[in-house]
Amino acid sequence: MKNKSRLKITDLGEFGFIARFSPSFLKKLPSGLVGIGDDCAVIPWKGRKKLLVTTDLLIDGVHFLKDRVSPFDLGHKSLAVNLSDIAAMGGTPLWAFLSLAIPPETEIAWLDEFFRGWRKLESRTGVHLLGGDTTGSRNSLAITVVALGLADSRHIRYRSSARPGDIVAVTGNLGDSEGGLRLILGNRPGKKFSAAEKYLVQRHYRPRPHLEEGRFLASRPEVRAMMDVSDGIDSDLRRIMESSGCGVKIYLEQLPVSAALQKCCRQHGWNLEAVAAAGGEDYCLLLTVAPEKFTVLAEKFFRRFRRPLPAIGQVTPDRGKLVYLRAGRPVVLGNIGFNHFRRD
Amino acid sequence: MKNKSRLKITDLGEFGFIARFSPSFLKKLPSGLVGIGDDCAVIPWKGRKKLLVTTDLLIDGVHFLKDRVSPFDLGHKSLAVNLSDIAAMGGTPLWAFLSLAIPPETEIAWLDEFFRGWRKLESRTGVHLLGGDTTGSRNSLAITVVALGLADSRHIRYRSSARPGDIVAVTGNLGDSEGGLRLILGNRPGKKFSAAEKYLVQRHYRPRPHLEEGRFLASRPEVRAMMDVSDGIDSDLRRIMESSGCGVKIYLEQLPVSAALQKCCRQHGWNLEAVAAAGGEDYCLLLTVAPEKFTVLAEKFFRRFRRPLPAIGQVTPDRGKLVYLRAGRPVVLGNIGFNHFRRD
Repeated sequence: MKNKSRLKITDLGEFGFIARFSPSFLKKLPSGLVGIGDDCAVIPWKGRKKLLVTTDLLIDGVHFLKDRVSPFDLGHKSLAVNLSDIAAMGGTPLWAFLSLAIPPETEIAWLDEFFRGWRKLESRTGVHLLGGDTTGSRNSLAITVVALGLADSRHIRYRSSARPGDIVAVTGNLGDSEGGLRLILGNRPGKKFSAAEKYLVQRHYRPRPHLEEGRFLASRPEVRAMMDVSDGIDSDLRRIMESSGCGVKIYLEQLPVSAALQKCCRQHGWNLEAVAAAGGEDYCLLLTVAPEKFTVLAEKFFRRFRRPLPAIGQVTPDRGKLVYLRAGRPVVLGNIGFNHFRRD
Repeated sequence: MKNKSRLKITDLGEFGFIARFSPSFLKKLPSGLVGIGDDCAVIPWKGRKKLLVTTDLLIDGVHFLKDRVSPFDLGHKSLAVNLSDIAAMGGTPLWAFLSLAIPPETEIAWLDEFFRGWRKLESRTGVHLLGGDTTGSRNSLAITVVALGLADSRHIRYRSSARPGDIVAVTGNLGDSEGGLRLILGNRPGKKFSAAEKYLVQRHYRPRPHLEEGRFLASRPEVRAMMDVSDGIDSDLRRIMESSGCGVKIYLEQLPVSAALQKCCRQHGWNLEAVAAAGGEDYCLLLTVAPEKFTVLAEKFFRRFRRPLPAIGQVTPDRGKLVYLRAGRPVVLGNIGFNHFRRD
């Protein structure tokens, strides 16, 4: 057995880290505040309005590879992943803060492009950059973004509201971003991407926060729990399960996947189900819906957004049990999930 | 001349960075919002209340040395430097967010101590940690803290309100933190610190945000511009000068310095004036005051805090001119100031 005092952060993982350090902060929280454990913190604002706050840290070598990603895409994505957290709670993002630790060899032209990408998403979403911090870095580029937004308290959706029997649904295709990442990491210099491959790479580099979808869904009382797909539904469902004290069964045939991903899985020998269930960074929304209202909701969603709202499974009373079903039979998907603290 | 497109971040420095990238964000800002360019951003809250938001990034090897600083002190300081920004605007800090990029070899025991230091200041100030992000890091530890607070809009003080004739004052001794840093960096293993040296090291590692002083001063209409001393008054005064469109003259004899710093300057051959004027991280407050009201204010400050409010100089109409006077004569202090982007 390991000596407890010599335990390293790699032994804990991100879930273990939060489980260990968050309770002491949560127990002292005044009522009306929501802290650690959801996509955003929730702070009372005026009247029924609540302030949503979220922050994400992106590190070169962990979340992106500076020498592969274009600075434009990186600027865009740094903001997008934070806005996605606001979308997941049903809010409207308004203000952002950007902190950069910049290695000395970084060119100004690179930063110009980074800000061009950032501003593109800013102007599309009406968000304003209000500040931040900049500093040198000895080694890697580190980006911290904070996004603030507002939401009506009746329309905020948490991870903790799923109930047994709820339909589990997602607002977009799964696995595209993971497919794109595999192509980026496996690509040999000089080799050109096919159209399908280009599509996946673009989906990885330029995620779209589902802000309108989030507001629409959060305004419907039949939508119970909601979060965004950042680590892959396999990880993300476990967070809903833990917060709501329930289980989930997923019908693998029903996972929505793009034609491009199917094609690339065939070509590269990837396991389509594993890519769709465990691939992260799709930044669509994952939600649970009162079962008797799901069909009507999906119709309304289709009329509004011109695409389906795929049901992929159901919430069960089996606390902590995530079951994948193929043709009605439970299957094991193998080694999936991701630990940011791992060395590889 | 350098090829413009190949300009590096080291060629700009932090001021240059802000000057280059902030205008495009500031020009689009809706009225009522204050963005980049002060200690905090200011966002309208309810009634006369405003929300203050600030963020600071601390990087191993740039802002601290992980193998020298105790994790307790680092946790404490990470929060302190952010609360100091809230103090500088006259606000009350309420909520914080903490993001950590953690190298894999980090021990849990180290993090336990980091959080113990953080919580010590939290409980002293009534601040609550509401969230953040944690991730692995390939190389160095990176810490990003966001602090949010509230202030009455009549009691918020900006960098831009200094007027020619104002008295320049500070709420604490200058240079102690820089002295402590010099001792930490120059210390040979095994060598013990004297009492005076220990005092300076403690001042570097455990800064106290001047929250009560900030609120007291901001509530007095004769206090015009205010900010915290983070980069040293030489840098910080230039920010007030730039924001307010004025100059400043500083009487070197009047810079408040501790007996411990004087002693260490003599022992180690440091230039006391340069350490006091250019040393950063004292985290006291730097303010300008309507001259006719200064004496009364200093008396009230003394009655409240049992220490003086030293006047160190005066605001002048000479836009952009920072003049140091010794025995009434202008002097040059030599190579001072700090560029975070420099490689050394």
